Amino acid sequence: MTEIKVIVVEPKFEGNIGAIARAMKNFGLTDLTLVNPCEIGDDCLGRAKHAKDVVENAQIHKEIEPALEGLDFIVGTSGVDSDSDKKHLRNNLTPKEFADRIPEIPGNIGIMFGRENYGLYNEELMHCDTVITIPSSKEYPILNLSHSASIIFYELFQTHAERRYKKEASGFEKDKMMQHFTDLLVATNYPEHKREKTTVMFQRILGRAILTKWEFHTLMGVFSRTLNTLSKD
Amino acid sequence: MTEIKVIVVEPKFEGNIGAIARAMKNFGLTDLTLVNPCEIGDDCLGRAKHAKDVVENAQIHKEIEPALEGLDFIVGTSGVDSDSDKKHLRNNLTPKEFADRIPEIPGNIGIMFGRENYGLYNEELMHCDTVITIPSSKEYPILNLSHSASIIFYELFQTHAERRYKKEASGFEKDKMMQHFTDLLVATNYPEHKREKTTVMFQRILGRAILTKWEFHTLMGVFSRTLNTLSKD
Repeated sequence: MTEIKVIVVEPKFEGNIGAIARAMKNFGLTDLTLVNPCEIGDDCLGRAKHAKDVVENAQIHKEIEPALEGLDFIVGTSGVDSDSDKKHLRNNLTPKEFADRIPEIPGNIGIMFGRENYGLYNEELMHCDTVITIPSSKEYPILNLSHSASIIFYELFQTHAERRYKKEASGFEKDKMMQHFTDLLVATNYPEHKREKTTVMFQRILGRAILTKWEFHTLMGVFSRTLNTLSKD
Repeated sequence: MTEIKVIVVEPKFEGNIGAIARAMKNFGLTDLTLVNPCEIGDDCLGRAKHAKDVVENAQIHKEIEPALEGLDFIVGTSGVDSDSDKKHLRNNLTPKEFADRIPEIPGNIGIMFGRENYGLYNEELMHCDTVITIPSSKEYPILNLSHSASIIFYELFQTHAERRYKKEASGFEKDKMMQHFTDLLVATNYPEHKREKTTVMFQRILGRAILTKWEFHTLMGVFSRTLNTLSKD
């Protein structure tokens, strides 16, 4: 399996960082990035056990953007909740559904985990091509952070996915596609306050579909042609 | 899903008991039995969070035999290791393989977890009808106890959880979407000989993405608006 980058955003308890590092190594992952983490000390290294190297080699960033640099496909994680503001940003692939699709995703993949108490903020979820939610009991759906991480890593590992379609659209190309989509909304006077939400929705649809390069270029062609026709008015 | 009894044998750290209780409740399990556990106090209840009731209702036994009474099918858990003495006692079902078989198992099922440092002893494994082993990296196969538990509970839950996407767009609605897409190709003078192929491609993209009703209607709105704007020429 291709190396997958694990990004943990603003963890508040160092023990969780250690527990995540251990779970990573248990399932063959080593590339850890921390965004604005709490202080890291003995409790973290104690929980990491034989995965201290994962903690010691972790990259640390103050902001999220540099942590995501170079990634072609970003996966968020999110608990089940009824916060309707967040809902539209979500796709809710299960860990298994995501793991099954990995072979189709070329380029660099990052999985992003949020804070223990709140998870990822909306603006962070907006960076994501798709979002994983672990199916859980309605009565008590909120999982411990390192438990969530270990369940997802387990699925990635056990699915033993090899990669097939090498020709998927890259991160740069996807940005161009989103720009075209936004331009289309503007050109058709789509209500301004809904534009962002609708663009994110479209990004998520394409994130789930995982376009080949041919599909990408064909769809871009349809957009370009539509925009050109519209601009002739 | 049938209630499954969770038995933890001689846990040494109370935090792990709380973490297991939480993972149980996250995945709809409530029946916990502890065999000769460590002292249970605030650390345990703190880690249990909203699953304190699971801890408070736990049965506690000094010995293993009374803990297994009334069970018809006992499942052990065991890490990957090279201890050849233990090997012959094992079956090594993966969590998924076990979860898939649950519907075929009649009567009361118990899942037994061992000590943090050693797992279950041979004489304990001999009580078991089968043993679950979580596939993990050869380099560092030993999982944290509550992580193992949460991975197994997750598999039990998701295997029996209902399918999501209740609100997926219907076949009729999808046909309307394809018609809109074709209309768009016509309205923008898309080369006639490519129209069918491109429409099928778009259909496949949406088929992979599996649209919710909301996504469907939003995307239909974008198409309608575009077609209306184009027809104003």
